[in-house]
Amino acid sequence: MSTYPGYTRKPHYYETDQMAIIHHANYIRWFEEARVDMLDFLGFPYEKMEELGIIVPVLSVNCEYKEMIRYGQAVLIKVYIANYTGTRLNFQYEIIDQKNQRLLTTGESKHCFLAKETQRLINLKKSFPTIHELFEKCFLANQKIN
Amino acid sequence: MSTYPGYTRKPHYYETDQMAIIHHANYIRWFEEARVDMLDFLGFPYEKMEELGIIVPVLSVNCEYKEMIRYGQAVLIKVYIANYTGTRLNFQYEIIDQKNQRLLTTGESKHCFLAKETQRLINLKKSFPTIHELFEKCFLANQKIN
Amino acid sequence: MSTYPGYTRKPHYYETDQMAIIHHANYIRWFEEARVDMLDFLGFPYEKMEELGIIVPVLSVNCEYKEMIRYGQAVLIKVYIANYTGTRLNFQYEIIDQKNQRLLTTGESKHCFLAKETQRLINLKKSFPTIHELFEKCFLANQKIN
Amino acid sequence: MSTYPGYTRKPHYYETDQMAIIHHANYIRWFEEARVDMLDFLGFPYEKMEELGIIVPVLSVNCEYKEMIRYGQAVLIKVYIANYTGTRLNFQYEIIDQKNQRLLTTGESKHCFLAKETQRLINLKKSFPTIHELFEKCFLANQKIN
Repeated sequence: MSTYPGYTRKPHYYETDQMAIIHHANYIRWFEEARVDMLDFLGFPYEKMEELGIIVPVLSVNCEYKEMIRYGQAVLIKVYIANYTGTRLNFQYEIIDQKNQRLLTTGESKHCFLAKETQRLINLKKSFPTIHELFEKCFLANQKIN
Repeated sequence: MSTYPGYTRKPHYYETDQMAIIHHANYIRWFEEARVDMLDFLGFPYEKMEELGIIVPVLSVNCEYKEMIRYGQAVLIKVYIANYTGTRLNFQYEIIDQKNQRLLTTGESKHCFLAKETQRLINLKKSFPTIHELFEKCFLANQKIN
Repeated sequence: MSTYPGYTRKPHYYETDQMAIIHHANYIRWFEEARVDMLDFLGFPYEKMEELGIIVPVLSVNCEYKEMIRYGQAVLIKVYIANYTGTRLNFQYEIIDQKNQRLLTTGESKHCFLAKETQRLINLKKSFPTIHELFEKCFLANQKIN
Repeated sequence: MSTYPGYTRKPHYYETDQMAIIHHANYIRWFEEARVDMLDFLGFPYEKMEELGIIVPVLSVNCEYKEMIRYGQAVLIKVYIANYTGTRLNFQYEIIDQKNQRLLTTGESKHCFLAKETQRLINLKKSFPTIHELFEKCFLANQKIN
């Protein structure tokens, strides 16, 4: 099971603000783009999860802005699995300057699995055991090792 | 039937870009806020229309930027009904500086009515005659008279 | 020195996502709107701070989503000062359902003061003592008391 | 001088709305992404233009939504030069479904060149003749031929 190489991104002009930096709310969107890209890479496109009736809402998010990011500054967003339990899924993020490898931003998001119809919590281990197994493997390969 | 007085708005910091102006894509969102506010004022909150199974997608939108708008610059957005036919609904917008009454932006959006379930066109005149009548009255009161 | 009563807000349609909830990244923007509104209320509009050459970037942000927020659901956003030191400023937020007073979301943002020109840290206590005093008073009145 | 092949894009989840389509305001942002990508391709990254003190604000924008775009639906955005005069620059856009080649959206944006410092109109032909020549060549290669 391969490791996710990360998501590369150039800031968009509409993401700048009048401090001439990327507005801080956009990073939360970048995290979403990155974890969706990771799920694509791992073979679980988010749209397939929704087709199966599974939604993955965000329970909490945090973001630490170590250095400002400016227009024209290409970044690599690394995504790690901080935790996966079958009912819960936590991602960690590192935004890195593509040129000089400096760590610009770190973040985390916590998620659960809900049935689209009933809006009730799903235990993937019980309800989708095949998916659970695959998920677990993928996630072991993408764990954050400090 | 009363005339809609317009929607007042102060730009948000996250709507600025690094030219130190409000990024042009945000005006399309302001137009939406303004027409939703108008529908509230007229007694047809958009959420009620969706509850009735009616969605009102956008067919086209245009926007002419006469003067840049900056952070701290409060505006009034006037909304007019350019056309209403029972199946089609067109809005016109004028964004005006609250301080000096200068016309900063003009725009237009065209809409139709769709059944949420079937995604088919609805003729309000046929399917919701009571709503149609009320709509027509409200709209006559908010027509753009050149 | 009066206490800030909070910022009232109705979600915009463009803030919904296809889970039919307000997309989680928008809350970070709502926090900004709320703290800017608080600064207005306290008599320090953010645009005045920028005119004085002070910018207030975000060092970190976090948000806990306790309940989903839906289109049509009006909210009150309470803002508290978690900390103010002259060089640092931390806000806490509570998003509350206007109808039933349920606590829907909590969050926090941490800020510093920078000179716009030099991008260097400013100590308001040293560089703008009059502002510092007023700030301190306002902030004592809006502290989070647990 | 080569022809720009177009900008490929997958919708982001945060760009959906509760009609389960891409919210119409996002297309205006996609147009910006596409013309910026084209300028990169042509060898005039927008950040270089700003470094030279040239900004390219939007004078008007319009968008016709022929078919809804949904999450998971990859698109190709073609960009054409509708007009270039040295003082004015107009782009045309076509958003095409990558799978079935259907034309989903068309649009246009009109721009001028301003000096960043003075906010005055620039005639590239006069003020930056070398750039003007290159621009003209690139643009002839990317004209919309109906």
